[in-house]
Amino acid sequence: MPLQIRIHEGYRTLPGEYLFSEVGRRVREYRMGHPEKRVISLGIGDVTLPLPAAAAEAMACAAREMAAQDGFHGYGPEAGYPFLREAIARYYATRGVTLSPTEIYVSDGAKSDLSNLPELLGDVPVLLPDPTYPVYRDVNLLSGRRIHLLQGNGENGFLPGPEGLTETGALIVLCSPGNPTGAVYDQGGLQKWVDFARQSGSLLLVDVAYEAFITGDAPHSVFEIPGARDCAIEVGSFSKMAGFTGVRCGFTIIPAGLCAGNVPLHRLWERRQATKCNGVSYITQRGAEAVLSPRGVAECRANIRVYQENARVLAALLTRKGIRYTGGENAPYLFLQTPGGEDSWAFFERLLTQAQVVGTPGSGFGPAGEGWFRLSALGRRDDTCAAAERLEEIL
Amino acid sequence: MPLQIRIHEGYRTLPGEYLFSEVGRRVREYRMGHPEKRVISLGIGDVTLPLPAAAAEAMACAAREMAAQDGFHGYGPEAGYPFLREAIARYYATRGVTLSPTEIYVSDGAKSDLSNLPELLGDVPVLLPDPTYPVYRDVNLLSGRRIHLLQGNGENGFLPGPEGLTETGALIVLCSPGNPTGAVYDQGGLQKWVDFARQSGSLLLVDVAYEAFITGDAPHSVFEIPGARDCAIEVGSFSKMAGFTGVRCGFTIIPAGLCAGNVPLHRLWERRQATKCNGVSYITQRGAEAVLSPRGVAECRANIRVYQENARVLAALLTRKGIRYTGGENAPYLFLQTPGGEDSWAFFERLLTQAQVVGTPGSGFGPAGEGWFRLSALGRRDDTCAAAERLEEIL
Repeated sequence: MPLQIRIHEGYRTLPGEYLFSEVGRRVREYRMGHPEKRVISLGIGDVTLPLPAAAAEAMACAAREMAAQDGFHGYGPEAGYPFLREAIARYYATRGVTLSPTEIYVSDGAKSDLSNLPELLGDVPVLLPDPTYPVYRDVNLLSGRRIHLLQGNGENGFLPGPEGLTETGALIVLCSPGNPTGAVYDQGGLQKWVDFARQSGSLLLVDVAYEAFITGDAPHSVFEIPGARDCAIEVGSFSKMAGFTGVRCGFTIIPAGLCAGNVPLHRLWERRQATKCNGVSYITQRGAEAVLSPRGVAECRANIRVYQENARVLAALLTRKGIRYTGGENAPYLFLQTPGGEDSWAFFERLLTQAQVVGTPGSGFGPAGEGWFRLSALGRRDDTCAAAERLEEIL
Repeated sequence: MPLQIRIHEGYRTLPGEYLFSEVGRRVREYRMGHPEKRVISLGIGDVTLPLPAAAAEAMACAAREMAAQDGFHGYGPEAGYPFLREAIARYYATRGVTLSPTEIYVSDGAKSDLSNLPELLGDVPVLLPDPTYPVYRDVNLLSGRRIHLLQGNGENGFLPGPEGLTETGALIVLCSPGNPTGAVYDQGGLQKWVDFARQSGSLLLVDVAYEAFITGDAPHSVFEIPGARDCAIEVGSFSKMAGFTGVRCGFTIIPAGLCAGNVPLHRLWERRQATKCNGVSYITQRGAEAVLSPRGVAECRANIRVYQENARVLAALLTRKGIRYTGGENAPYLFLQTPGGEDSWAFFERLLTQAQVVGTPGSGFGPAGEGWFRLSALGRRDDTCAAAERLEEIL
């Protein structure tokens, strides 16, 4: 008898393919048909500069340590080693945010945490910015939750506020600096969300994976906002700050007093993590600790300056062409309005076939992204300049 | 307003604490009250010997490689790098099992996969051995699934079979060699389960985390059994084989043709993984690849021989004391019947307070584990001998 096993309903509601898998598939197909063309990707938000030497050396050292009897580490604490939790607390302290290391939960990446945290919740309404990082949408679709989109557009600078909302007890996911839009909430904008969450008994889940790219005085953490400890969980990442996309380390901050009814949310998270995973590689955690050392921070900043220069090259091109865009200043993404209101996937195909430049269609991030397009500044310097030259010709 | 957010119902049905968190808490409390006593843990199934040098060197090398522009690796393939998937396929080939590397999905550990794979399924009946690794139970409780326990006991050697079962379209989780019992299905025993799964349209999920400890001719993989490709998924681990408990690497095998209705299960898994995580550290994967090299395999075998000798020391003690037990021969666990039918947690407290030896109460693994107790042979040689001497006195 073939398998009679029932499939989870959520998989029927999900788009057939994860956005970046779809982009990857189309690029592979084009390459196979045009092996002579050199395709430049400003598509998926992957970094391209090597790891900070401080992190690489710390990991090499930790790996060797593990081969000696007195340096071996088996199962680590599920929430992360104290040395890393303390280093993250110190990093937040430099921004004026006081956290107990025990409020910080280390993981194998922000994407995992953003996917897994909603598991703690029941069938709550979910408020998501539109356009948005598809993971927020997909994991909540999988859980069958009702999603209410917060429309971003050129007029609100892709920074929708809570005005007019009536939901209570909702999960609200924000990303600041934003993916795909590169837009960043200022103190006042984030304060409005914290106030709304507190008034409506809602939970704010804030993704700050791109905070290291902030150049102005926008908040790097929701916990810079008064009242946030009563309503917010924050997810951070070493991926973009330190080039850890292939190393995998992130963290979640759950304030000690944050409760639903009388249930502390950190207790549920500890139970979830103890049940379903076994923490993060000791070697990785030593690397992340080194990222936060003075030398590591300096090396990360040097890399980020390169990406910021890429962003300036792309921004200058768009400005010369009279193309409207957000981002680039406080984030490694530029979100541009397609000339003449061209459909996002059509624009994708045009850039791919005419200039062999890969970006990401705005509509892949939600309906409000239609007519927009994301370029990443995380490419190599020479690739970014070459792509800008090609785009100069066809735009 | 305090958070009005609804908590997932599943967290109400779960035991308050994960078994090993509870064991850890009790041991910490005892230590605080008796700082002068040296506690020896034969409790949690953590390894104690250092990493195979081949793996440590490969990871140190990969970490350094990542600091150079031409050696940097960003986001990797979610399913794992081809070099590791191919190495795992070759390892299976040495057991006579033919797999395509594309049927092998790398992860950050067997525990993650065993927790995440049930997400693909709807509200199916779940059949679990009792006693069992608590993760199988907890993740299915969280999902609200109906659990049917397959009673193990001294009479069936903790190897329950499918006789008399009437479920169809069920999820059946097996662990062989078994945790906590150390019992291993032979070819015939596993064939019965494969036959039952095929007749009942059920899915077999087989955890082979301990296969490297098999000394006899028991199957190392369910795919050694004819018909398994029609009904089984297998989860493997580098944790016990290669001391990777603190490095985190495992894998799942989903046969290409395995479908529920017309939905290939591997497609759902790829969608789940692409949505919710970003693969495993490149450095870790190079370490796992080195584990499977001839040098790595030899180093792993040398470590496993030490643990097997520990198991013999513990087995000899139990035999001398006339205590009934299973395991130890094909697994690093010995599962003993408490003398006089003593309650599992009472026996735990007695060993902790009278001998300062930590084990795991059988009842923590399910009701059929009551009156039984798990000892791990994964401790250090000197600790294991010292523990055996202490137990010699009090048993």
